[in-house]
Formats: sequence, structure tokens, C-alpha cells
Amino acid sequence: MWNMKQLEYGALARRANQIKKELRQGVRRPYKEVIDVFQGDLHRAGMKPLTFVRQVLAACVYPPLINSSNLPLDVRQRAQEELGRCVGGSVGSYSAAPGIPEIIHSISEFIKRRDGGIPSHPENIYISPGSQWSISNILNVLVNREASPRTGVLIPVPCHNKTVLSITQLGAVAVPYYLSEEQGWALQVEELQRAHESAKGVCNPVALYVINPGNPAGYVQSQKSVLEVIRFAWEKRLFLLVDELYQDCVYGENCEFVSYKRALSEMGPPFSGTVELASFHSVSKGFSGECGLRAGYVELVNLDPAVMKHIHTLFSKDACSPVLGQIALNLMTDPPKPGDPSYLLYKQEIEQIRTVLVHSVKKVHEVVNSLPGFSCPPIEGGLFAFPRLHLTPKAIQKAKELGLQPDTFYCTRLLEEGGVFTGPGWEYGQKEGTYHIRYNTSRALFKVHH
Amino acid sequence: MWNMKQLEYGALARRANQIKKELRQGVRRPYKEVIDVFQGDLHRAGMKPLTFVRQVLAACVYPPLINSSNLPLDVRQRAQEELGRCVGGSVGSYSAAPGIPEIIHSISEFIKRRDGGIPSHPENIYISPGSQWSISNILNVLVNREASPRTGVLIPVPCHNKTVLSITQLGAVAVPYYLSEEQGWALQVEELQRAHESAKGVCNPVALYVINPGNPAGYVQSQKSVLEVIRFAWEKRLFLLVDELYQDCVYGENCEFVSYKRALSEMGPPFSGTVELASFHSVSKGFSGECGLRAGYVELVNLDPAVMKHIHTLFSKDACSPVLGQIALNLMTDPPKPGDPSYLLYKQEIEQIRTVLVHSVKKVHEVVNSLPGFSCPPIEGGLFAFPRLHLTPKAIQKAKELGLQPDTFYCTRLLEEGGVFTGPGWEYGQKEGTYHIRYNTSRALFKVHH
Ligand SMILES: Cc1ncc(COP(=O)(O)O)c(C=O)c1O
Ligand SMILES: Cc1ncc(COP(=O)(O)O)c(C=O)c1O
Repeated sequence: MWNMKQLEYGALARRANQIKKELRQGVRRPYKEVIDVFQGDLHRAGMKPLTFVRQVLAACVYPPLINSSNLPLDVRQRAQEELGRCVGGSVGSYSAAPGIPEIIHSISEFIKRRDGGIPSHPENIYISPGSQWSISNILNVLVNREASPRTGVLIPVPCHNKTVLSITQLGAVAVPYYLSEEQGWALQVEELQRAHESAKGVCNPVALYVINPGNPAGYVQSQKSVLEVIRFAWEKRLFLLVDELYQDCVYGENCEFVSYKRALSEMGPPFSGTVELASFHSVSKGFSGECGLRAGYVELVNLDPAVMKHIHTLFSKDACSPVLGQIALNLMTDPPKPGDPSYLLYKQEIEQIRTVLVHSVKKVHEVVNSLPGFSCPPIEGGLFAFPRLHLTPKAIQKAKELGLQPDTFYCTRLLEEGGVFTGPGWEYGQKEGTYHIRYNTSRALFKVHH
Repeated sequence: MWNMKQLEYGALARRANQIKKELRQGVRRPYKEVIDVFQGDLHRAGMKPLTFVRQVLAACVYPPLINSSNLPLDVRQRAQEELGRCVGGSVGSYSAAPGIPEIIHSISEFIKRRDGGIPSHPENIYISPGSQWSISNILNVLVNREASPRTGVLIPVPCHNKTVLSITQLGAVAVPYYLSEEQGWALQVEELQRAHESAKGVCNPVALYVINPGNPAGYVQSQKSVLEVIRFAWEKRLFLLVDELYQDCVYGENCEFVSYKRALSEMGPPFSGTVELASFHSVSKGFSGECGLRAGYVELVNLDPAVMKHIHTLFSKDACSPVLGQIALNLMTDPPKPGDPSYLLYKQEIEQIRTVLVHSVKKVHEVVNSLPGFSCPPIEGGLFAFPRLHLTPKAIQKAKELGLQPDTFYCTRLLEEGGVFTGPGWEYGQKEGTYHIRYNTSRALFKVHH
């Protein structure tokens, strides 16, 4: 029998894998399959990759395909173009450390279009093997390990947990600011103030980490909220780390993604020229969902040239990012255009993914709120639901007896009895005395659609 | 006119790019093309990628190719198998952080075969986005930034310069041990002793970095030499970091690659159970030459479980390595077998690359030694020549007047006047008063062969 006491961080995943294995070996359980809604991977959830992206990448990998009449003409031309940018015409050569220059240029053009014409400078953009890697590296630059008091970084609660891990591993202090669940997980400046005050005597806050749209809570910040945060960062001289990976995943009515870069620029002086900003994006999220290719980028704004030099060295020291991931980034930021042979299919696939995601989010929200003991504010963006569990005192007591966090106890039962693999709220942070679970909203519906 | 005084680290590369651009724009020079022998990239040097590797990767990227009768059957089967190991059947999903379990298992089998049956344990193997990344990460674990005196790492001179960069960036001290140029760049234990002694009062040496076969100097260590180094590491309680990326690139007569793992195992107690070892390998070097895919692995031996836990966390914090790189690692360590449809072509391509490399090395050695002012011991392995420049006092004087290192001055002239782009020896380290240049031995000949 599975000993519940053994459960800790990561143990749920191991247990889920064990159950999957047992099911394959014919062990009988009340379900035939484990539904894995723990991860945010779209391909894991059953989404098909975008045809255009995969065709171009395949032709780059195996250039004889460029001559194949089975592939659309624009795919073949694009592959040729991408290979022309690779040293020696091969995706097997190292590129320049910050990324292939033409691709960095194309990313800057994408940012400019997205931000209504506000310029973006290629020399401020670095490609990395996944955005998590650049988040870690920028944190590395911001954190002074020898400082006393220690360096502090303000983080939202709940928060994407890999970033919290990076902060604590660097010896810095993660200072929590709580998002307001009652207000649909809104980010409130008074709470930022409180968090900043709370750091006094504990650490020296130098940066503010924001996730917009959110993970695990599915909020989308309004323009007003973005402006407030920037003003706060300016007042307190905080470096803004903005994780904008889910910028394409916005579903809420009256919701719109507003980039920090644009908002900052439009604020004008003194803000626009002083607030230091790092904005992260990636091929992992949005509609390409190519987590396994490992490519993200960071755009840096208003950084001191000396710091930029240091960042350049850090981003160069392990050579370059995977070249195929870089090409995927280019395809994401410079997709087929109307009139191109691949355009219609591309558009159709994107629309279908969007439809599934919007539909999933609605459905999940409905179902969750109809269950006794659950509540969940509207999910406006991102890929996750983070509903609250209203556990009975008896369930909490039982969990404590087992030496478990109450939400871990709940997730374990959901896995053991229902075959559904979710994440317990404490892994992402939550207000004391509240309990949540996190799960990927898209999984169930992709499975139905294919 | 190009101002020679502006030259510093990286400036030669910028100048080479500028000249390339000018040549494209029609500027006349005594040469039509810049010959770039600075980098160690085989694809950049004109080597064609291995067909089998690229076909399998293409079919993994774009699975409809699995049904294409244009690809050999084993390629299609292999692609299917590799995709079966990917979560959700897509190279676009995250894998487990240390790597895809079946691929790690297959790497351990490869190591076992290579080492005459000595077991290799999958839980000691981690895949990373290039081996440079794991070298940096293991160094990160070994270096105590707060220690006084500072942490020391013994490094060969000349040395692969990215590793030196990592050491100094971590705040550690790189303690040089000089390879004996007179003895074909042999690694001598007396010199290790001297280097270790020299650290007294400066830093606390905790690790010894060895590159075998060498880069930039093309030596291959004998078994005797490997055993001596292990014994020295044991005596001084040094962690052995062994960079074995060029294990397939051995050309010298009577030369054989001996892995540190095997030598250590065969030494028996007390060595075999105590000396801590990290051995690095990569898809970048050897015959696949897939630098741009970014995949390497490290095998760890005799590490304390607490340290292994820490390493696990470090290797997990930025999610996984590029999945296509992982698959390429698997193809490198588990290539087509006799009887497989792709076997003959694969073998033929490998043989051809080997022939070109062996031929290049001989040629380069001959030519270099026939030039006045140059000398170079036999090149036994690796991808580089590191000949010595016997500069005249006048040339040295002239360089000094320009504020340049004498070898930089030479490389600059070689680039400006001859169109050949090489690296100055001081970037890799050299005995004071000696001057060298580094260059990739393979480039000229691949160009001729295609
Ligand atoms: C908010 C957030 N930031 C960063 C990442 C890292 O993504 P990647 O490293 O794949 O680009 C993720 C991945 O799930 C995420 O959800
Ligand atoms: C000796 C040595 N070690 C490590 C590396 C890093 O290789 P990669 O990170 O591509 O695996 C190189 C690359 O040139 C090298 O020459």
C-alpha cells in the first residue's frame, strides 16, 4: 500500500508515474488512464503542433526536403532563408551567442509591431534555451550574494514556482505580495507597499517579479494596473522582471494584453528613461507550445551599459541557444502572411487552438464552480486554473494526522481515487489557511477534439 | 584604415566579419574569401551532417515523414521509437529534467560498451543544453564563493577558454599547470605538483580540470598519464573534471583514447571508490558535429548523495534540455547496426569524415613545420593545431608599439593580408615569452572535398 506520509514536493509526480505504469501492466483501478493536468505543456495535453512550424524546421534539419514538392513553396523558401542565416548553412553550427542576428532583428520588429511602433533595439535582445534560463541569469546579475542584508525580490503569491526556486537558490529572499483572490487575483499596489515595508530589516528589495497573464492564477492585468506597478517600481527603484510568456493566451471579455514595455514608453519621462525592465517571452507558450525546443528571449530596457556588458558575458559563456529553437522563435514572431501558401492552414490551426482554449477555460470555470467545496474567479488568461478548495475541518485534521499539507492530501486522493493528477496550491504559494489546486485547463478538451 | 590598437578579445572576430562583409560588397583585397579556421565547428568548416541523424530528426520534427517511402525503413522506425519516448508523442513537450529516461539509459549502455563492461548508472547521468553548460554547473557546485582563501581549480595551459571564463566568473582562481610543449604537450605530474604548491596562500584547490584529447593542443593522454593524474587527484583530494569531448577524434599512431572512468574503475580500491569524477561528452564534437543542437551529458562518479541532490536541483531548475538534441545524443551513442538499411551509408560517411580529419591533421602538421618561424609537435587528437610562432624581436617590438599582444599582431596580419582568421595563443594561455596561434585543422580540407 502507498504510504501517504512519504509525500513531499515531487512525490505526487512519482506516484502518478507509478500508477500510469501499473495501469499499463493491467492493474485494475476505478479509471483506465491517469489524466495529467499538472503540467502546462500544450503538446502533452494533446495539442497538435503547428504544421508550418514543423515543416520549416524539418526542412532545415534535412535540407533535401527543400526540393520536395510535398511541402508548400513558402515552407521551402523559408527553410532556405533560415539556413542562409546559419553559419555554414547548417543548424548544426554554433550561432552568435546572443542569437542569430537576423532572428534577433526579426524579434525586435515583432515587438515593435506589437507595441504600436515603439522601437525595440536588437542589441537589447538575448535568446536563451528557454525563458526560465534567462530569468535565472538576470536574477543572477541582480542578486548580490555577499550583501548584508540579503537581496530581496518581490514575487506574487501564487507564483510560477521555478522562479521562486531560482531566487532562493541564489541566496536571495523571495518577498511575497499576495494577489487578491476576492478581486479575481488582482495585483494591488497597496499590497506591493505592504510587502515592500515587510522587507525592512530582513532584506534589501532590488527587483519586482510580475507574471502577466498569470500562472498559476489566470488573471490579465489591466492597463491601469500595469501603470500602477511601473510607478511603484520607479518610486522604490525596483528592477522590473516581467514574465509575459502568456501574452497570446487572453480569453476574458474586455481583457487585453498590455506589454510593460509599451506602457513604460507611453508614460514618458521620468519613467520611460529610468525604470529598468526585463521582459520575457518564449516559444513554449502561446500557440506554438514548443516547450521541448527550448527557446525564449528577453528584451532589456534602460539598463546601465556596464550591466549590459556583464549580461552579455553571462549569456555568452555556455555558447549559443539551440539553433532550431531560435528558428522556431523566428517563425512565431514572423508567421506566414496573407497570400502565402501556408497562410490559410496556419490561421485555421491557430483559430482552432484558440477556440479550444477559450472553450476549455469556460468549461473548467463552470464545472469547478458547480462542485461543492470549490470556488474559482473567472479565468482571463494563461493556461491554468487555480481554484480554491474549501476543505472541511475534518479533512484538514485528517491531513495533519498524516503529516500532509491539506491540499496535498486532496490532490493525492484525486489522483488515487479519480486518476486526475493536479498540483497542490502550497507549491505555488497561497494565503495561510487557504487551499488550492492548480491544473492545466486545456488538457481535457484537446483530448476530446482529436 | 583599420586601427590595430583597437584590438582586444573578440575584436578579431568582429574584424573578420567586417572584412567578409566588405568582400561581399565588392571591396578588393588580395583574397576573395576569409578562411575562418578560428572555430571548432565541423559544419562551419564545411562538413556535411550525417544523413541518418538528420533524417531521424526530421521525421521526429514532422511525423508525417514517418510514412514517407523516401526515407529508409530504419530511419522511420527509429523516429517512431524516439517519439514514443516523448511525452505526448511530441518533441515539443518538456522531458524529465535530467533527460528522457530511455535516452539516459542508452547513454549508460554506450559508456559501458566503451569501457569494456564497467557499469554505468543512469541515475549518475545528466543531459544538458551543450556540455559547456554542465561544466559551468558542476563548477558552480564546487566553488564556494564565500570561502577565504578562494576556491582554486587547476587548469591546463593552453586551455579551452570558456571553462577558464566560467571559473573566474564564479569568483574562483584558475591555477595553471603548463603542458610540456617540448614533449608533445604532455601532462606531467611534477608540473601538477608544482601548480598545486603554487596555490598555497593564494587559494584552496578543490578540483582539477583535464581535457583529453586536448583543445587547443592536440595531445592524447596515454593510459599511464591518465593513471598518474588520477593518483594525484586522489592524493590531493581533488575533484576530477574531465572534458572528453574529443574522444572520437584520435589520429596519432599508437594513440588510444582511455576514459578516466574506466582507468579509475580498473585501479581498484582505494581509488575506484573515492576519487570524485565528472566526465563530459557532447554531440558537438566527434563525427556528428552538431554544435547547434546543444546537447551534452555528464557522468558523475563517487559523488556524495547530498551533492548529487544539489546537482539534481541545479540541473532541474531551468526545465529540460532541447529534446531534439537529446535524440541526437541517442543517435550518437546508439547508431545504426550492421544489417540496418542505413548502416552502410552511415559507416561510409563516418569513414570519410575520419579520413578527411586524419589527412588534414597530417597536412597541417607538414605545412606548418615547413614554414619558417613555425613549429608544431605531432597532432594526435582533437580538432585544433596550436603551433608555436617564433617571432623576431623586431615583430615583438612592433606589436608592443601598437599596444598589442605579439600573437594578436600576427593573427591580425594573417587576417588582413592573407584572409585567414585564427586565434591568438594568449586567449588560451601559453608560457610567458612564447607565442602561438590556434586553428581548426579540418576546414581547408572539407572545402576541397566537397
Ligand atoms: C510563467 C512562466 N514563466 C516561465 C516559464 C518557463 O518557460 P520556458 O523556459 O519553457 O520558456 C514557464 C513555463 O511553464 C511559465 O509558466
Ligand atoms: C574542450 C571543449 N569542451 C567543451 C566544449 C563545449 O561544447 P558544447 O557546449 O557544444 O557541448 C568545447 C567546444 O568547443 C570544447 O572544445
